[in-house]
Amino acid sequence: MTDKREKAIAYAHEHQDRFLNELKEIIAIPSVSTDSKYQADMDKAANWIVQKLKDLGAENVKIMPTAKHPVVVGRLSRGSAEAPTFLVYGHYDVQPPEPLELWVTPPFEPTVRGENLYGRGASDMKGQMLAGLKALESIIKTDDLPLNLRFIFEGEEEIGSPSLGEFIQNHKELLQADIALNLDGGIVAPDLPTISVSVRGLAYFELRVYGAASDLHSGMFGGAVHNPAQVLCELIAGMHDHQGRVTLPGFYQKVRPLTEEDRANFARLPTDDTYFLKTTGAPALFGEVGYTAAERIGARPTLEVNGLYSGYIGEGSKTVLPAYAMAKISCRLVADQDPEEVHQQLLQYLEKNAPKSVRWELTQMAGSPASSIDTHKPEVQALAQAMEQIWNVKPIFKREGGSIPIIGQLQQILGMPTILVGFGLPDDNLHAPNEKLHLPTWRRGIDTLIHFFYNVKET
Amino acid sequence: MTDKREKAIAYAHEHQDRFLNELKEIIAIPSVSTDSKYQADMDKAANWIVQKLKDLGAENVKIMPTAKHPVVVGRLSRGSAEAPTFLVYGHYDVQPPEPLELWVTPPFEPTVRGENLYGRGASDMKGQMLAGLKALESIIKTDDLPLNLRFIFEGEEEIGSPSLGEFIQNHKELLQADIALNLDGGIVAPDLPTISVSVRGLAYFELRVYGAASDLHSGMFGGAVHNPAQVLCELIAGMHDHQGRVTLPGFYQKVRPLTEEDRANFARLPTDDTYFLKTTGAPALFGEVGYTAAERIGARPTLEVNGLYSGYIGEGSKTVLPAYAMAKISCRLVADQDPEEVHQQLLQYLEKNAPKSVRWELTQMAGSPASSIDTHKPEVQALAQAMEQIWNVKPIFKREGGSIPIIGQLQQILGMPTILVGFGLPDDNLHAPNEKLHLPTWRRGIDTLIHFFYNVKET
Repeated sequence: MTDKREKAIAYAHEHQDRFLNELKEIIAIPSVSTDSKYQADMDKAANWIVQKLKDLGAENVKIMPTAKHPVVVGRLSRGSAEAPTFLVYGHYDVQPPEPLELWVTPPFEPTVRGENLYGRGASDMKGQMLAGLKALESIIKTDDLPLNLRFIFEGEEEIGSPSLGEFIQNHKELLQADIALNLDGGIVAPDLPTISVSVRGLAYFELRVYGAASDLHSGMFGGAVHNPAQVLCELIAGMHDHQGRVTLPGFYQKVRPLTEEDRANFARLPTDDTYFLKTTGAPALFGEVGYTAAERIGARPTLEVNGLYSGYIGEGSKTVLPAYAMAKISCRLVADQDPEEVHQQLLQYLEKNAPKSVRWELTQMAGSPASSIDTHKPEVQALAQAMEQIWNVKPIFKREGGSIPIIGQLQQILGMPTILVGFGLPDDNLHAPNEKLHLPTWRRGIDTLIHFFYNVKET
Repeated sequence: MTDKREKAIAYAHEHQDRFLNELKEIIAIPSVSTDSKYQADMDKAANWIVQKLKDLGAENVKIMPTAKHPVVVGRLSRGSAEAPTFLVYGHYDVQPPEPLELWVTPPFEPTVRGENLYGRGASDMKGQMLAGLKALESIIKTDDLPLNLRFIFEGEEEIGSPSLGEFIQNHKELLQADIALNLDGGIVAPDLPTISVSVRGLAYFELRVYGAASDLHSGMFGGAVHNPAQVLCELIAGMHDHQGRVTLPGFYQKVRPLTEEDRANFARLPTDDTYFLKTTGAPALFGEVGYTAAERIGARPTLEVNGLYSGYIGEGSKTVLPAYAMAKISCRLVADQDPEEVHQQLLQYLEKNAPKSVRWELTQMAGSPASSIDTHKPEVQALAQAMEQIWNVKPIFKREGGSIPIIGQLQQILGMPTILVGFGLPDDNLHAPNEKLHLPTWRRGIDTLIHFFYNVKET
């Protein structure tokens, strides 16, 4: 088998210029999902992927419509029945390129400068998607390695995957697999391979506090009624204690405590407190006592104010006593918190603490549970081994602070765990001007994925 | 003298239709001070007043430029040197008429419906200004009553009188008088004459709290840094205690306690708690314990949040950890609080309570002290007597919740007290669509002012 594996890797190296050209081709298609003016380009990108899957020998490749942007699916079965089936996930849409004037070269004219390829989607995630497809091509064109694959490439990730949950629900058969391989991950540094083993969940709310029926003159009425902005501030202030802990009743009840192994993994991350101070530019770090910043982001739930509005916010002064005040508040959740339970906890908190001098409304805007994968699973071990084979260093098992709804949806709807892998870097300028892909890391990524598929077969 | 007084009042009654037509004329000039597209109308309104003052026989009438809208001044001396000199104040600018679609008849086409005249500025304050001028005309055209008057009509009241302080400072001689007669007041009900004997001061601030150098992803960084919106809410929450009292250090130190006479006057007001509940539409009243709503508005200082902003406030959800949060905060002040002292108190509060994990900036936007007039002054008694002569009921001495900067400026710069009088009603829709003037009350107002000038001469 080692010989075959080496042939596949040799193929990848031999074709690396073509792989890069193909990546440039797909980056040049401005598949921006937020803006309907790019609709034709979205279709073009979906068709481009269809062709790539067909070139791999995939069957039943098709573009399936959703309420907004279509999903590309397909299957490839070269394996025995007992071999695991992977659901390979990616998205072909990208963030809008604005502000255009800050790009050194145009976002949809992919350009190599030094070791990097610049262009919108180079890292997020056309590069990652291609790494997966090109690893598979390298195997398929050189060997008969049994592989059972399902593909799903969506076009709505950058707008929050609004259609994906329903799509999964309606096409369970089509997506049946043992484990998902989500290519939308990244590593923490070029010399430090990383496997993302959990993502936080999200529970997002809008809270409105209402006082008087309309805005009042703060002179003529200031002193008569409760100011809803003041009440909102009091309610928000009460949501944390002096130790930076969230006070919603039962908020931490289901949170899994950190093990020694977890803490050791966090300690290996290059993202120590100095890193966060530098990256954020904040005067000091802050958060729940007893945890490092990396631990708080990866393994602890948080409650953040994402937006605040009340009254007059223009220039100068206006003496208005506002009729209402609004806050957007979201919690990042960890296993085993449930977004609906957090919703109930917030309701309980408000019922207990909101004064009778105001009315209030709470709307739940989004909710997804946290997801994690057991690091002892053979597929995770196969990936860890592949990374060590390329980097000569054991990868870090990283717990992500962000939320990736598809991971939660696959877990909830199909009971399917996800391996989140990818070779983007923290400085790739995702969602920002001059997005780039570090080509040496990308090529190492392709080699790693080749090893991964062989390792899986061998375990 | 009684005979002459009656002749003047008879003149006012005889010419009441013309007075109304003149009022319609000036309302039809859209002298909106906020919007430069009305500049020609501002000039037209100023010139209209110049003509009215000349018609009264005033001298040195002129339009004096300021940085923005001009001031109209003039003088009329028919009195002996020992007679008091009044500085008659008004403003010829009005609020913008928007939203236009809510007006039953167009804002600048004054229309009588029932007992009311509808139009922008009908009550605030073209009607009040005319009441003063027409009372003077009625006296001047029928009698040789000695009168010493100075006039000042500004065009920036509705934008906060930005030029007026400097104007007063630079033209002290021009404005020299014993007492100001500010016609921009009102009465609390058609059957309840009112003299406003104090206005609250104002100290207005913008507070900004800064966290990270830029907006952060709440998943990737939530837990690492202090959320400035959270900190702002905590700071604001701490500005009141559980009894609705302001916690700034020393805030109440100079506040004059309410006397029994003060409380008796408040008790006479028709604005009891039921009134405020109905007028505001709030679920319940709220404020500093131990005081009625009317007392809290008239005689107690307050701290209000006028505006709040942070992060994402559009539709839907965005998981941003904001880089900064902003609040507009203002205090209404009573005698003998000082706006600069309150500024220092707020600084002290912030220095003590703001955590080191954020930076903050406090900007003072406006400041004016509270002003009051001694109710035992002969001019105040002359006005009280005039009201009783017309209404057959003793007027209420009312302490206003709002702030009128000109009153504080005249006090501070010229040491001049102000009698604030006017005949607008609480339901006149000031600053709102369908502004109106109650004509029977307006006519009573003209008669009252005629009595007032005679009463002053007799005291």
